[in-house]
Amino acid sequence: MPTNFRLPGPTPLPPAVLAAMQREMIPHRGAGAKELFGSILKRTKEIHRTDGEALLWPGSGSSGWEIAVVNLLSPGDPVLCAIIGDFGDRFARVAQAFRLDVRRLDRPWGEAISPDQLGAALEKHPDVKAVFLTHNETSTGVTNPLPELAAVVRDHGALVVVDAVSSVAGLPLLMDEWGVDFVLSGSQKAWMCPPGLAIVAVGPRAWDAYARSAFPRFFWDLGPARENAAQWTTPTTPPLSLLYAFDAALDLILAEGVEQVWRRHAELGTRTRQGVKMLGLQLFANEAFASNTVTAIALPAGTAAKQITQAMKRDHDVVVAGGQAHLTDKIIRIGHMGWCDEADVDGCLAALADVLVDLGVASAAPQPSLTA
Amino acid sequence: MPTNFRLPGPTPLPPAVLAAMQREMIPHRGAGAKELFGSILKRTKEIHRTDGEALLWPGSGSSGWEIAVVNLLSPGDPVLCAIIGDFGDRFARVAQAFRLDVRRLDRPWGEAISPDQLGAALEKHPDVKAVFLTHNETSTGVTNPLPELAAVVRDHGALVVVDAVSSVAGLPLLMDEWGVDFVLSGSQKAWMCPPGLAIVAVGPRAWDAYARSAFPRFFWDLGPARENAAQWTTPTTPPLSLLYAFDAALDLILAEGVEQVWRRHAELGTRTRQGVKMLGLQLFANEAFASNTVTAIALPAGTAAKQITQAMKRDHDVVVAGGQAHLTDKIIRIGHMGWCDEADVDGCLAALADVLVDLGVASAAPQPSLTA
Repeated sequence: MPTNFRLPGPTPLPPAVLAAMQREMIPHRGAGAKELFGSILKRTKEIHRTDGEALLWPGSGSSGWEIAVVNLLSPGDPVLCAIIGDFGDRFARVAQAFRLDVRRLDRPWGEAISPDQLGAALEKHPDVKAVFLTHNETSTGVTNPLPELAAVVRDHGALVVVDAVSSVAGLPLLMDEWGVDFVLSGSQKAWMCPPGLAIVAVGPRAWDAYARSAFPRFFWDLGPARENAAQWTTPTTPPLSLLYAFDAALDLILAEGVEQVWRRHAELGTRTRQGVKMLGLQLFANEAFASNTVTAIALPAGTAAKQITQAMKRDHDVVVAGGQAHLTDKIIRIGHMGWCDEADVDGCLAALADVLVDLGVASAAPQPSLTA
Repeated sequence: MPTNFRLPGPTPLPPAVLAAMQREMIPHRGAGAKELFGSILKRTKEIHRTDGEALLWPGSGSSGWEIAVVNLLSPGDPVLCAIIGDFGDRFARVAQAFRLDVRRLDRPWGEAISPDQLGAALEKHPDVKAVFLTHNETSTGVTNPLPELAAVVRDHGALVVVDAVSSVAGLPLLMDEWGVDFVLSGSQKAWMCPPGLAIVAVGPRAWDAYARSAFPRFFWDLGPARENAAQWTTPTTPPLSLLYAFDAALDLILAEGVEQVWRRHAELGTRTRQGVKMLGLQLFANEAFASNTVTAIALPAGTAAKQITQAMKRDHDVVVAGGQAHLTDKIIRIGHMGWCDEADVDGCLAALADVLVDLGVASAAPQPSLTA
């Protein structure tokens, strides 16, 4: 039995994705590479539900933050960073590193941002040119109500910039319909690929902002990337093996159907939360906004995450994550995005149940259905 | 028979490198990833012949240019770009994009830069803080006399910043002994890996320059990369599959022995040039500085590179490159770096000989030893 790899990223690679990386090199400026890249861009747009541009770089989700900052804004520009966890906080730190004028809207970790709260923050900071939103906060297992939040930002007139690292290709994200201007993600989450690709989608208002942006830039410059993408190529050497992998993953996603992928993730999220509650454990996230790609579990006081994650790996070959920042040892997180099915979730919960018993943590006996 | 893939990058992947990418994901912050990354950094330093730091990012050779610029300099700083071909020119364009004060030393393409020429340029531009040198110019098949050039720059007091994209791991590069301060490369050349990794090596004077640099930066920031590397980890999610590949390639290089790898490349370079001359063709590069990783052939007037490269692919399944920029259709380039042996070179030359005859281009009959 392979490891039940339930990190909230990197996520396991389906056999077809692994197999795709067995392909040898091809001329990266030749017809084969163009056809591959053109097809990838087309399908990536489709999954983002956008008529805008999709663009890819060697990189990670973190480079997506930098791509947003240096292409959509200018030094000193005021932006509102809406922060509900560690990744939102990091996005704000990138904005600060590039000397944007960062205004923060912080919410307690585990909570989402409400449209009213966002509206009030924008009234307080009417000059902000962009709002940086986390669609799904991987560190807390919370999904923000993005359609409503995007509408508030659009009404205000600022750009809607969305970190979709642990949402896109797993959770519904209708970029054009929701009025999102810029979406960034990394390949190692619901895309079911190895880390190493930064993926962005760019709408018309983001292109207007690009035209006004005064940052010096080269590698992440959206303009040459767009011109090259129109010719199905890239300004710099593309990471071919990762494109082979991404191509195979897109095939899998579209063969299943994007809506069905979203439904599967919704079912896996529900199943995980039900299982956690049956074990007598607390969800860390406000359940009204609990994520369908990652579930965070608040551990009883005195229980260290490391004890549990280590025992799950050692005794059951199940890999889950602890928390981040001040939550490091206080929560565990189960990833259920990308290449994941009910058996994976059930096996993970069964292992958790056993470990809780072994460690004497469980208050309620695990359900038979979870330990079978 | 697999394609004889003789581009000067990307280069073919050895079976062990392909196989390495079949490994599933591992926790990127776990002990296994640390051990992998620590071992990679140690061996990467060894191949650079440096006691400085080796650092890796998702990226390409082009990101290496950006890493150099935004970490070693400040906006407006004068730099000397020593340009002998298309890649040297691109490095200068990156410097310009970041608003450095770029002074150019241009040499005719096909020529190297001499220490005297570089010394004269530095006398003319005594204020430059760094000199950007191309070790091996992939677009022309020329290797600069780097030890001598580096010495001239050191005497002047400027930083020695070297694009080693198509040299390191193929040609001798003794970073510390030669006094080179910063070396950048990409994974898809003599490293025998897929494109997707940027590799840099950083010496003490480069760290001093880093401390003075005023560029805003995040993803390419050397400081956090160094701090993390000391703990065998990375500030952002590492591209695991490419690290697996790089790890396997390092094993191959060190099993063969770095000096033997250099010798093999020297022999392949000599063999290729001899073969080209036996076909009655002209080397594009001044032979005194001809590269041992890539050979450029000046085509007779009236012969289009595309005709030859297409016929070689179609009739012989041999892939070679045309030229770049104004040389696009005037030269062809044969890569003999990374995973390459005598049979690959001979097969490539034999295919070239046949195609020249078919197209009525050859002035001299090909040698039997090349067409056997």
